[in-house]
Amino acid sequence: MNIFAPTKPVCILGLGLIGGSLLRDLVDKGVTAYGYSRPSSGSRAARKEGFDVQEDLIEVLQRANEDEALIVIAVPMDTVAGMLDEIAAHAPNCGITDVVSVKGPVAALVDERGLTDRYVGGHPMAGTEHSGWKNSFTGLFNHAAWVVTYDFAISQMEEHGSVDKQWTEWFSTVVRMIALVGAEAVPVRVKQHDSAVARISHLPHIIAESLSIVGDNGGTLAQSLAAGSFKDATRVAATSPGLVRNMCETNAPALVEVLDEYIDILQKARVALDQPEPDISELVDAGYRTRLRLEARTGARGESVSPVKISSRPVLRLHPGAPNWVTQLRQSEDLGGRVEIF
Amino acid sequence: MNIFAPTKPVCILGLGLIGGSLLRDLVDKGVTAYGYSRPSSGSRAARKEGFDVQEDLIEVLQRANEDEALIVIAVPMDTVAGMLDEIAAHAPNCGITDVVSVKGPVAALVDERGLTDRYVGGHPMAGTEHSGWKNSFTGLFNHAAWVVTYDFAISQMEEHGSVDKQWTEWFSTVVRMIALVGAEAVPVRVKQHDSAVARISHLPHIIAESLSIVGDNGGTLAQSLAAGSFKDATRVAATSPGLVRNMCETNAPALVEVLDEYIDILQKARVALDQPEPDISELVDAGYRTRLRLEARTGARGESVSPVKISSRPVLRLHPGAPNWVTQLRQSEDLGGRVEIF
Repeated sequence: MNIFAPTKPVCILGLGLIGGSLLRDLVDKGVTAYGYSRPSSGSRAARKEGFDVQEDLIEVLQRANEDEALIVIAVPMDTVAGMLDEIAAHAPNCGITDVVSVKGPVAALVDERGLTDRYVGGHPMAGTEHSGWKNSFTGLFNHAAWVVTYDFAISQMEEHGSVDKQWTEWFSTVVRMIALVGAEAVPVRVKQHDSAVARISHLPHIIAESLSIVGDNGGTLAQSLAAGSFKDATRVAATSPGLVRNMCETNAPALVEVLDEYIDILQKARVALDQPEPDISELVDAGYRTRLRLEARTGARGESVSPVKISSRPVLRLHPGAPNWVTQLRQSEDLGGRVEIF
Repeated sequence: MNIFAPTKPVCILGLGLIGGSLLRDLVDKGVTAYGYSRPSSGSRAARKEGFDVQEDLIEVLQRANEDEALIVIAVPMDTVAGMLDEIAAHAPNCGITDVVSVKGPVAALVDERGLTDRYVGGHPMAGTEHSGWKNSFTGLFNHAAWVVTYDFAISQMEEHGSVDKQWTEWFSTVVRMIALVGAEAVPVRVKQHDSAVARISHLPHIIAESLSIVGDNGGTLAQSLAAGSFKDATRVAATSPGLVRNMCETNAPALVEVLDEYIDILQKARVALDQPEPDISELVDAGYRTRLRLEARTGARGESVSPVKISSRPVLRLHPGAPNWVTQLRQSEDLGGRVEIF
């Protein structure tokens, strides 16, 4: 038996870029994994490639329930509630995780349905600007951070001094699944997650959309001259508009906060430029320093040199359920560390 | 004889990323090309690789003058004036071009020294976030737009009804050199160039610096979760701070204008997010549309599919000096078109 194998089969609801790539990876690793997709060219293509994909949600959930499978919700935010309703009705034996890019709104829907004691929130920090099964591929999650939320464990510790055993097992299953597809499980509480991704994911989306419009305003000439810096900074504006709206609008309060922080920096730069002797040294020196710090931390510059990528995230080797394990998760969180289960 | 070969030798002043890569390409194509560099590890490395590099500026210029070479100024903006002084003193027979990312300030320095009738401004829209000879490489300019300015030709047509023959020849030499290194010569007037690059190059630099700071403010956790969208949008913040300051500060008026345009879009997004029912559809739909337009125009999506890259820029085949050639340049400019000399 593969020591990394999840102890349970995995049932994926939604086979877009993320759900589809996860199905490919899990099957590739020998895990029993199957999925639900609404009837679409994607679901036809997946079946044609030999994947175990059904278009009847209730049938899939009944099967998952018999298997005591881990269910992965991989649909956009605006259809999560409907999925949870069906899971509540048809899959009482299953653990639940998701891959949605905001965690607060999902956790609220989970709470409302009384599913919290078998839910572990998730968010793989991976993706491209292309969506749908047709763009899914094996290896998408390699070396990516994959957030796992553990707020339930904290509140259990506070209330009972220990964490529900069943939930602890689902937590372990989720972390093992993440390791299996080559990603790194990073424990983060819901609020901290939403605030961090507003900063490093949702803001870059707003920036890409805005810069793309400014570039277009320059007409054909400006577009003809656009090179690497412009193309890289606008790349994710090619993401399906519905997906971008889903993540930004559902994380609006956190996003507004970092947007204010960002606009403030830009306005200071504007003032520094609008002088007889323009001087943006403060901005440029700080920008340069912070970018080098990121590169040093993530080894970005090293990637092209060595074929072996060493993770830059500190590792916490954890036995869920052991004394202090929740405190350890809490300590790891502030460092953006990854956990491995031993 | 190579029909693309410039009729003249090329003398490059400054052997950083751009000057160094140009020297490599020209030598690779069999052109007589040599360079000046101040004494540095770069100049030693270049000579060790067998390149014809000298550290005595006046000697290099005297040789260029004997060769009636085309001189390419490839130093940062803040050292251009000194180079022009030496060229005026020691190389009266040479044509002059440059690769500086702003054209107005360079043209002003050229005018002040009475060198306008042998100067053709240039700006290759190519580069990486790494600078110096050690990062230079053959092929950097492949398929890149390379701006050539032609304001002098317009004023000559207005004043005399024709363009000085010597200048016309230098213009042709510059365009041929650009074609030789695989780039596409795009004629743009000075003011139009500076306004366009503020939009598609200098603004992305300001954005990268600012976002990098915002990301860093999120601490270790946010940095650990940063993925493709953040890394791509901050990539050019790793550019040497001096280079970024040089280009942004010398193009401040145009940059302030587009910065205002950009901040305005962000502020509208902020308002749209800060509602009970956040709705950023206007931003996201426009951003998506404009990005797809860019991709359609530049064939960005096609790059990975076909090994042959077809230029997306309309071509104007030109005989410099022929009737109407300046009018044709003017028409090509609005389309961001490229010129070839026949």
